[in-house]
Amino acid sequence: MTLVSLTTDFGVVDGYVGTMKGVMAGIAPGVTFVDITHDIKPQDVPSTAYVLWTALPYFPEDAVHLVVVDPGVGTARRAIASSTAWGVLVGPDNGVFSYVWDNAPPRLTVALENPDYQRQGVVSGTFHGRDVFSPAAAHIAAGVPLREFGPEVTQPVRLPSPGMSLEEGRIRGTVLYIDHFGNAITSIGRLIWEGSLL
Amino acid sequence: MTLVSLTTDFGVVDGYVGTMKGVMAGIAPGVTFVDITHDIKPQDVPSTAYVLWTALPYFPEDAVHLVVVDPGVGTARRAIASSTAWGVLVGPDNGVFSYVWDNAPPRLTVALENPDYQRQGVVSGTFHGRDVFSPAAAHIAAGVPLREFGPEVTQPVRLPSPGMSLEEGRIRGTVLYIDHFGNAITSIGRLIWEGSLL
Amino acid sequence: MTLVSLTTDFGVVDGYVGTMKGVMAGIAPGVTFVDITHDIKPQDVPSTAYVLWTALPYFPEDAVHLVVVDPGVGTARRAIASSTAWGVLVGPDNGVFSYVWDNAPPRLTVALENPDYQRQGVVSGTFHGRDVFSPAAAHIAAGVPLREFGPEVTQPVRLPSPGMSLEEGRIRGTVLYIDHFGNAITSIGRLIWEGSLL
Repeated sequence: MTLVSLTTDFGVVDGYVGTMKGVMAGIAPGVTFVDITHDIKPQDVPSTAYVLWTALPYFPEDAVHLVVVDPGVGTARRAIASSTAWGVLVGPDNGVFSYVWDNAPPRLTVALENPDYQRQGVVSGTFHGRDVFSPAAAHIAAGVPLREFGPEVTQPVRLPSPGMSLEEGRIRGTVLYIDHFGNAITSIGRLIWEGSLL
Repeated sequence: MTLVSLTTDFGVVDGYVGTMKGVMAGIAPGVTFVDITHDIKPQDVPSTAYVLWTALPYFPEDAVHLVVVDPGVGTARRAIASSTAWGVLVGPDNGVFSYVWDNAPPRLTVALENPDYQRQGVVSGTFHGRDVFSPAAAHIAAGVPLREFGPEVTQPVRLPSPGMSLEEGRIRGTVLYIDHFGNAITSIGRLIWEGSLL
Repeated sequence: MTLVSLTTDFGVVDGYVGTMKGVMAGIAPGVTFVDITHDIKPQDVPSTAYVLWTALPYFPEDAVHLVVVDPGVGTARRAIASSTAWGVLVGPDNGVFSYVWDNAPPRLTVALENPDYQRQGVVSGTFHGRDVFSPAAAHIAAGVPLREFGPEVTQPVRLPSPGMSLEEGRIRGTVLYIDHFGNAITSIGRLIWEGSLL
């Protein structure tokens, strides 16, 4: 019994998330769904990378993490799956997994190209969350090996690691995330926590 | 292990949806719950019909779909369950299933009248979502045949099929749904997709 | 297969709730999660007590109810678990369970002090929902007896029972909860329902 987590910018008003779970339940009956969030700011890839970095280490190691924050849908950007010590990541190749990979490096990353593991839309046109990413996540949860999905990707897109610089009299960093209370989380705290300053 | 989807206008603030799942888990332990949406505009039956039409074809065929958008609660409107090729539908007899039935015609529709499959409120008064619809959905998921719940309904309430007319120099249609981005989905696109114009 | 319900004031934007479920799924695979609400007004203990009172009687008796509405996090307030006829309650010792206990008195209440059933944060600092309450709820769902978690608590914090007084020409009560429609629920209705006035 595997777990699939979901992280998107779809919101929960329109039924898109439920539709993706319907697809996955048909492929991997009995899978457990856990919503991380569906309220990522639209197309905000760096915030997604931050949320995944804070949440994924607390999940079972065999979990599958489905991420659909995808400003490049409809372009040539690749769809990928990547196995790591923090679970198998499934989503667009746009950097959303960068901060996870900083801590749990990719073991194998593949492009999701095999049409046998995709589905065609019945009602509407292109909806990669439903037709590409969800079927892949469910087939992975059901035990299909990553290499079945397509060729290896050796250079997935990565965001620059959040930096911090020490200058005379000041520390310079980056805001990684603003939570719903309005708290700003910066790379300075992150790097101190990781020991870079200790 | 069956799946029950939920579509309501209850929102997720007050605990009503969780209460319905508590009722169902007591009747059908191990059932998988999938929320389609709880943010239907209050009592908006046509939008509900649209959302169900777009989501249900992607679910397993043996899923049970619980719908509580019910402007007629407290009146004589019937509660029904209806088996179709898109799963078993459970909800008020007010037309919410119209667009599903346009594509997956009802095989058997019954009125939910048998008190053996209802429960009495412990804390508050009448809450049909908790006391009528949820117990029915869970008993159906647990394998109780539809005919156990009450008499057949041969003429359930149906909304008019969304139309489109071709006039000299113009196409006339209907707005079916406005999503949370503000996009308006019209019957024109729907009918073109279904091939009526091709 | 046990059920864990969740009631918090975390909202669903930031991924905290998903993180807690990830922790629990690692300890008790196959557990069913049911969200009661994550939209309790921040730190509103009396409203939480009200919501639990209305929802919990509809859940299976062996359910575990995880509650994290915790204005005292970081202070010396205790973390507790309490077995009742309405399931096992897990949360801070601040009165959130008062109205449940009014109806389903505590059988055994213990302090969550045993570090074997806690976890240390990997990414961030103190987050009791993730590191204390969620592990406890999951271990209880997996069958660990309450006495393993710590010493008995004989006097947990309780809110005063919502009162009502009959005076000449008037009934005096308290507003227990304001729902998302703006309806105010008062102790007068509650006590009439319980028969105090009949």
